[in-house]
Amino acid sequence: MLPLGQPPACAYPLFMPRLLDTPDELAPLQRELVGALAGVAERIKEALASDMPAVQRLVEHVEQYHGKMIRPTLVILSGLACHPSDVAKGQTAGLAGPAPLSPLTPAHTTIGAVVEMVHLATLIHDDVLDEADERRRALTVNRLTGNEAAVMLGDYLFSSAYRLCGQLGDAHATVRIGQTGMTLCAGELLQLHNRGNFSLDQRTYFELIDRKTASLIAVSCELGARASGADAEVYARMARFGSKLGTAFQIQDDLLDLGGDQSLVGKSLGKDAEKGKLTLPVIHHLQSSTPERRGKTLTMLSEGAPRALLAEALRSTDSIEHSRRVAEGLVQEARAQLEPLRPSHARQMLGAIAEAVLTRAH
Amino acid sequence: MLPLGQPPACAYPLFMPRLLDTPDELAPLQRELVGALAGVAERIKEALASDMPAVQRLVEHVEQYHGKMIRPTLVILSGLACHPSDVAKGQTAGLAGPAPLSPLTPAHTTIGAVVEMVHLATLIHDDVLDEADERRRALTVNRLTGNEAAVMLGDYLFSSAYRLCGQLGDAHATVRIGQTGMTLCAGELLQLHNRGNFSLDQRTYFELIDRKTASLIAVSCELGARASGADAEVYARMARFGSKLGTAFQIQDDLLDLGGDQSLVGKSLGKDAEKGKLTLPVIHHLQSSTPERRGKTLTMLSEGAPRALLAEALRSTDSIEHSRRVAEGLVQEARAQLEPLRPSHARQMLGAIAEAVLTRAH
Repeated sequence: MLPLGQPPACAYPLFMPRLLDTPDELAPLQRELVGALAGVAERIKEALASDMPAVQRLVEHVEQYHGKMIRPTLVILSGLACHPSDVAKGQTAGLAGPAPLSPLTPAHTTIGAVVEMVHLATLIHDDVLDEADERRRALTVNRLTGNEAAVMLGDYLFSSAYRLCGQLGDAHATVRIGQTGMTLCAGELLQLHNRGNFSLDQRTYFELIDRKTASLIAVSCELGARASGADAEVYARMARFGSKLGTAFQIQDDLLDLGGDQSLVGKSLGKDAEKGKLTLPVIHHLQSSTPERRGKTLTMLSEGAPRALLAEALRSTDSIEHSRRVAEGLVQEARAQLEPLRPSHARQMLGAIAEAVLTRAH
Repeated sequence: MLPLGQPPACAYPLFMPRLLDTPDELAPLQRELVGALAGVAERIKEALASDMPAVQRLVEHVEQYHGKMIRPTLVILSGLACHPSDVAKGQTAGLAGPAPLSPLTPAHTTIGAVVEMVHLATLIHDDVLDEADERRRALTVNRLTGNEAAVMLGDYLFSSAYRLCGQLGDAHATVRIGQTGMTLCAGELLQLHNRGNFSLDQRTYFELIDRKTASLIAVSCELGARASGADAEVYARMARFGSKLGTAFQIQDDLLDLGGDQSLVGKSLGKDAEKGKLTLPVIHHLQSSTPERRGKTLTMLSEGAPRALLAEALRSTDSIEHSRRVAEGLVQEARAQLEPLRPSHARQMLGAIAEAVLTRAH
């Protein structure tokens, strides 16, 4: 058990350092968010606990992988921003006067835990697929105990997530989470199928990341809003917000794999090209290069050239800038989904998170 | 779509050939079972269908892995044997006279599909763990398309199973299935943790197979009975029946890995010793050998001696016979669980299935 009032380091949301410099009016919301994420981390710990020491040790190792907690953050903020009766009332918590009731419910905590656990399960299996050695500055499970244990531990997390979701007694949530699991696995399979396919077009790329990355972020926003009693039109809009945000997030991930600082990102980088995964900047570059330039880049890709050399080639066709612009456009579309919501600090923070996707360095 | 009235080859239950030689009175039940299993196979096909050709091709390959369909068979038969009002009425189907109403419901079909899909998912991941090449006379997914696709396809099946289960709108079933998923993964992790542990005792062995194998068979019987409206005492008894049956089933699997005919079993054999998995005959042998004999067997295990040589050593301590006796005892305990049930053909067939575990060659 964590001592009360001391949320673990992992419970700070992704953009906290940046947002701490923003208006003071968001400070109470930030405190509420940190408290809610500590609750999510605790729910995950309880849901994964095993009476078998060999399993419990692995589970505790995986808890180090919590990092940005972006999906639970979106569950909580969507829940706060879409509460139909009084969006503002949760946001004065911590100010003088009687403590108001928060619109957050235990269902928000559970859904936050479920989406994070599904995400952790996919991270563990991704690391097996990518033969990665490092994740959030800790050794990957596959590196630590072998691929077999990593496969089984991922399955354990998936099963725990579904059991926890079942405990909500909300068939809609269970079906949507199962469906999202299918969608993201299908996205991974599509990616594997297209490994080393240097003719991959942008349409297929977007179909792929829509499934692989955006789907879980979209369902986080959708179920967070739904748990606050938002109507179908509102939670469908939040799903669109999450989907656009998730796609922009993946493009930024592509850019970080190419040019990010491994010590900041906290995982092995430069793996995309090495594993034959085509990213948006590479696809754009191959499509807009002269045949000669294209040939040179293909040689580079097949020979596993250092990522700095690849990045240099991509700059010659403005492909990195192009990808940034695509991500910017998606962030604008995401923000537009928030406009019809009643103004609130939660809505403001969702908008700030969308912007921060473009500038994140980890 | 399968043509109506023509269940696929895979829909025949494990013990059909043997049971076909048993009393004529079971023939109508057999016909009902074959029809119900065809419904389960169809439900699985629908639940796994993907609009992405790359995924659909893999799904169709996995459908070849249906073999014994033992878990859906137990769902159906437990449902028939535990129907509280009139167990017999489903068993005259196909005889002259007006067709009676079957106590089977769409929930039995769905639960049968869910447990089979969870089982198929674990088979796919087991094959990755075991580096197996062959499964039900077809190439394993890992052999066919690599470990990465096999990991993701297993995840896709898990997610599909949970989505389908969620569609039942029965939180108890969803939670039990998620919990069983956790239990069986924990069992696999315990097995990996004990790989090559030549001091493994029988207590840990039973703890391990209770989780790894018996848990899913137990929940199949439990949820099948529960879907017929059986009360808690009855479905808890059916869970015990399944648990004992499942444990006996695993011991027989150990014996087949050691002495079975690969062409009959339809999967790579002799993998247990090779992968450092201790089985009941080996554990018994190591515990009851002289130090000299024990040393020789340990050398054999570490050098990966042919399974025929290992089997010969085990016979010297009567360890194969000992394991058979343990399995026989478990089958008797399983059958005893059925005694308080009202007499019915379904109860009779459940008893026959328990007996057949001891004689199965595949």
